[in-house]
Amino acid sequence: MAYELLYWPMIQGRGEFVRLALEAAGAAYVDVARLPETEGGGVPALRLFLDDPARPRPPFACPVLKDGDLVIGQTAAILLHLGARHGLDGGERDRLWTHQIQLTIADMVAEAHDTHHPVAVALTYEEQKPEAARRALHFRGERIPAYLAWFERVLDGNGGGHLVGNGPTYADLSLFQLVEGLSHAFPKATGRALAANPKIAALRDRVGALPRIAAYLASERRIPFNEQGIFRRYPELDG
Amino acid sequence: MAYELLYWPMIQGRGEFVRLALEAAGAAYVDVARLPETEGGGVPALRLFLDDPARPRPPFACPVLKDGDLVIGQTAAILLHLGARHGLDGGERDRLWTHQIQLTIADMVAEAHDTHHPVAVALTYEEQKPEAARRALHFRGERIPAYLAWFERVLDGNGGGHLVGNGPTYADLSLFQLVEGLSHAFPKATGRALAANPKIAALRDRVGALPRIAAYLASERRIPFNEQGIFRRYPELDG
Repeated sequence: MAYELLYWPMIQGRGEFVRLALEAAGAAYVDVARLPETEGGGVPALRLFLDDPARPRPPFACPVLKDGDLVIGQTAAILLHLGARHGLDGGERDRLWTHQIQLTIADMVAEAHDTHHPVAVALTYEEQKPEAARRALHFRGERIPAYLAWFERVLDGNGGGHLVGNGPTYADLSLFQLVEGLSHAFPKATGRALAANPKIAALRDRVGALPRIAAYLASERRIPFNEQGIFRRYPELDG
Repeated sequence: MAYELLYWPMIQGRGEFVRLALEAAGAAYVDVARLPETEGGGVPALRLFLDDPARPRPPFACPVLKDGDLVIGQTAAILLHLGARHGLDGGERDRLWTHQIQLTIADMVAEAHDTHHPVAVALTYEEQKPEAARRALHFRGERIPAYLAWFERVLDGNGGGHLVGNGPTYADLSLFQLVEGLSHAFPKATGRALAANPKIAALRDRVGALPRIAAYLASERRIPFNEQGIFRRYPELDG
C-alpha cells in the first residue's frame, strides 16, 4: 500500500525532507494535498485531516506520514520510521547517530526559518523586517559557519563520503536539502561557507546525482524554492 | 555501569529533560560537570569533552549521555534511548508516538528560549530587549495557547491521565518540565493557559508527586530556575 504524505502543496518546507527519503527509497507514495481538490486533494484535504476532532492522536502540524494505520507527525520521527524500513538509517548500530544528525539539521532548519520570522509566524516578513535583518546578520556570521563546520567534521570523521556508514542515509538527504535551501536563501554567505567546507559541497553534489534523486529533482514533483517556504531569497538578508 | 550526563552545571536547560528521565528510572548516573573540578568535573570537563578533536562523532552541543561506549547527543535522541531501556516510552507500539510528542515539546522549548533571545544566542538579553518584547507578546498570545491546547487534546484522547498509555513516559516528564519552566518564565500567561487546560495542570501535579521525582525535586540535585537558562523570569516579557 502506498504511503500518504500530508503536507502543504505549495512549498518544499519540512515536507521536502520526507519527500526526499521516499524518493530515494523508490517508495510508492501519494502527496495528498498536491492532488486536485476534485480528487480529494488540495489544502482542504489537509485541513480536514489536521482539524479532525475525532482523531485521538492528532499531529500538532504537518508533515504527517500515513503508513497504513500508522500516522506519524514530526519530520524527524517520520524519517526515523522510513529510515529503518528502507535501509536509509545506517543500520541498527548507527540508527541513533543518524537520528542525532537529523535532529541537528532540524535545529538549523528552524533557525534558518526564523531569520525571516524572528518575531512571530503569525506576522508576515514585511511586518518584522528590522528584526529579521538583525537575526540574519548573526545567522550568517555565526550559525552558518558553526553548523557547517560540524557537518564537515562529521563527514571527515567518517572518511568524507557520507555522514554515516558507507552509503546514503536520510541524514545525507537532509543535509543535501539544507544546503540547497541555504544556497537559495543566502547564496553569498553559503558560498563562502561551502568553500570552507568542501566535503559538504561534494556530498551535496553526490546526493543530487543519485539516480532516483536526480530524476526527482528534474520532475514536476519537485516544487521550486519560493518565498512562502522555509528558505526564502530576500537579498537584503544575505551578504 | 553508571550513565554519565554531560551538561552545563549551572542551569536546568535541556539537560533537565534527561535528568528527569534518569531520576524517574532510578538509574545510577554521574552529572559530570557538577562534580568539583578537582574530581574531573566543572565546565572544564565539559569543554574538554565537547572540543576533543579526536572524537569522530562529536556532539554539536550538550546535553550528551554516555552509556558505556555509546555517546548520544540531542535531548530527544537521548530520551529515545533511555525510554526504551527503562520502560519510559509506552512500549514498542507507542515508541514513535511518544517520540513525536517529545519533538513537539522540544519545538516549544526552542520557541520559549527565543522569547529572550530572538536575534542571536551570541548576544545577551539586554542587547535584544525590544525584539524580545515583541516576540514574547506573540508567544504568550498565540503559541502558549496553541501548544497547550494540543497537549490537552492528546491527554483527553488518552483518557486524561497520561500522554501515552497507562503510566508515565518521558513525554509526561518532559511536559512537566515544560510547564514548570513556562510557569517560572510567564506566570501570568501560563496561569491563564493552565486554567483553560486543566488536564495538563493535573498531569504536572501528578508527575511532581511521583516518589522518585518528588525526592529529586527536593534534593540539591535539582538546580533552581535562574536567569541563565531556557526559562527566565523577566517580568516585562509576561502579561
